[in-house]
Amino acid sequence: MYLPNKEVTRVTSIGGGPIGGGWAAHFLARGYDVTLYLHDPAEIPAFNAILDTAWVSLTALGLAPGASRDRLTIVHDLGEAVANAQFIQESAPENLTMKQALYKTLGEIVPPEVVIGSSTSGSMMTDIQADCATPERTVIGHPFNPPYLLPLVEIVGGQKSDPEAVKWAGAFYQSAGKAPLMMKKEIPGFVATRLQEALWREALHMVANGEASPADIDNALMNGPAARMAVQGQCMAFHVACGAGGMATNLDQFGPALKLPWTRLDAPELTKELRDRMVSGCDDIAAGRGFAEMAESRDRQIVAVLNALRASA
Amino acid sequence: MYLPNKEVTRVTSIGGGPIGGGWAAHFLARGYDVTLYLHDPAEIPAFNAILDTAWVSLTALGLAPGASRDRLTIVHDLGEAVANAQFIQESAPENLTMKQALYKTLGEIVPPEVVIGSSTSGSMMTDIQADCATPERTVIGHPFNPPYLLPLVEIVGGQKSDPEAVKWAGAFYQSAGKAPLMMKKEIPGFVATRLQEALWREALHMVANGEASPADIDNALMNGPAARMAVQGQCMAFHVACGAGGMATNLDQFGPALKLPWTRLDAPELTKELRDRMVSGCDDIAAGRGFAEMAESRDRQIVAVLNALRASA
Repeated sequence: MYLPNKEVTRVTSIGGGPIGGGWAAHFLARGYDVTLYLHDPAEIPAFNAILDTAWVSLTALGLAPGASRDRLTIVHDLGEAVANAQFIQESAPENLTMKQALYKTLGEIVPPEVVIGSSTSGSMMTDIQADCATPERTVIGHPFNPPYLLPLVEIVGGQKSDPEAVKWAGAFYQSAGKAPLMMKKEIPGFVATRLQEALWREALHMVANGEASPADIDNALMNGPAARMAVQGQCMAFHVACGAGGMATNLDQFGPALKLPWTRLDAPELTKELRDRMVSGCDDIAAGRGFAEMAESRDRQIVAVLNALRASA
Repeated sequence: MYLPNKEVTRVTSIGGGPIGGGWAAHFLARGYDVTLYLHDPAEIPAFNAILDTAWVSLTALGLAPGASRDRLTIVHDLGEAVANAQFIQESAPENLTMKQALYKTLGEIVPPEVVIGSSTSGSMMTDIQADCATPERTVIGHPFNPPYLLPLVEIVGGQKSDPEAVKWAGAFYQSAGKAPLMMKKEIPGFVATRLQEALWREALHMVANGEASPADIDNALMNGPAARMAVQGQCMAFHVACGAGGMATNLDQFGPALKLPWTRLDAPELTKELRDRMVSGCDDIAAGRGFAEMAESRDRQIVAVLNALRASA
């Protein structure tokens, strides 16, 4: 029922702020025809500034064959914006009432086989789609800022979303050059923002207590885990750092340290089930690669990141 | 009283595991004569493997003039190891009783003007130096794994440490190519590990609740904040993302969201004092740079990181 991903050539971006404008830039760079809906012509200069900025980076990363800024059309009529769209990325302001009204309208004027992805970071799709008459094809497609640079898109449906539409969105974002994360549950904050918020709250505690300044926090992150995190997430970082014992050694040996008063976040109970889930999850990511191989490739990529940071400073 | 940093040419590393061995490799690559103390000759093969691995990366990052693996001496006698040392990096096993005994001995056999930095991640210097007769020059110099790659070193003294020794250590690590973080208080977990632990606990909660797999967690981090975090810490990421309003806009606008049930970490009270401290801290880091300039340089460096990741994959 949904158009095969590879046949999508026309995308509509609703909203031209940093998120919607960033999405428009991304889709242009990946070679799509892009229709941008701006509520007010007065928003054009700000959008152009976003596109100018983004295009420098997108060009440096490499444009898709045929990609061109000339393939952008800006319209101010919603019906015109969605006519002929094969995919819609919605990045309207973070106001649930406004989004519900928007999806009510979109539900009537957009053919039901066109998937609509919402960039929202603050609302759940079950709420956004509440008044939509054709909610099956509405999903969350939440990017990470800046959306024209960072690959992550978190994807999840609401209670009325069609699982096939959710699956389609994941495959589409992948074919559009993004790194999809198919969420297992609809939870506020999704995955990446929750992780970031945990870190952010701890940072605020440390500043509140005079234990660190913002400069200390940023120094700790930039010169500490960041370069490694670009190469390995926290699970694989611990998995590989523990050598042949991997995540099992990490949890069995350092598990008790979770109860130390290191942070203000209550630790979950380290049940056998959780332990096993962590261990088998890391084994899944490793996919048969040996520890020496993973450590070697980690180091090689960290070197590349460090050299890139230095050369671009 | 302490030797000027630039005159230090000889460093002793106590311990040859992943941390102590990584330190030895780092100091060799920075052009120091390094004496490595290994308790047992049987540890030599494992250390050599660490050095072999590290040297590949250190060479790719660029060796200091005169740097050579030939400038390494391995000894098994502690007195011989510290004789003539101008700085000592201690990376003995994480056992407080063992470290206290070690510092008791070092306190007797190492001249009091030689600074001793401990790699400990689990103990505080006030405890480690408890039985040391010359504790003034003992400080924490906590690296981030892998220590031959990641620049961060967290530095803090214990109650008996001489503030001059702490300051000396900061300047020394800096001159030895590291990124020092001078801690304001002696707290368990220091700064970077606390931030990482907050993130780690949130990750464990999500896995425990079936909200994400380890692969989802790692995907979220690697493709989400990581590349940006290598370029901007979380404070500056929010500061710059909010445009001209900066951190003040972030806290004034999104402060209430801190109370959302997004994470399991209780948020600190967002007092005016905390708000102002965050805002002025970000202004300090910006050091007069405009938002457009900071966003431009952020994007340029993220592009460099992404291209580096791709080229080294």
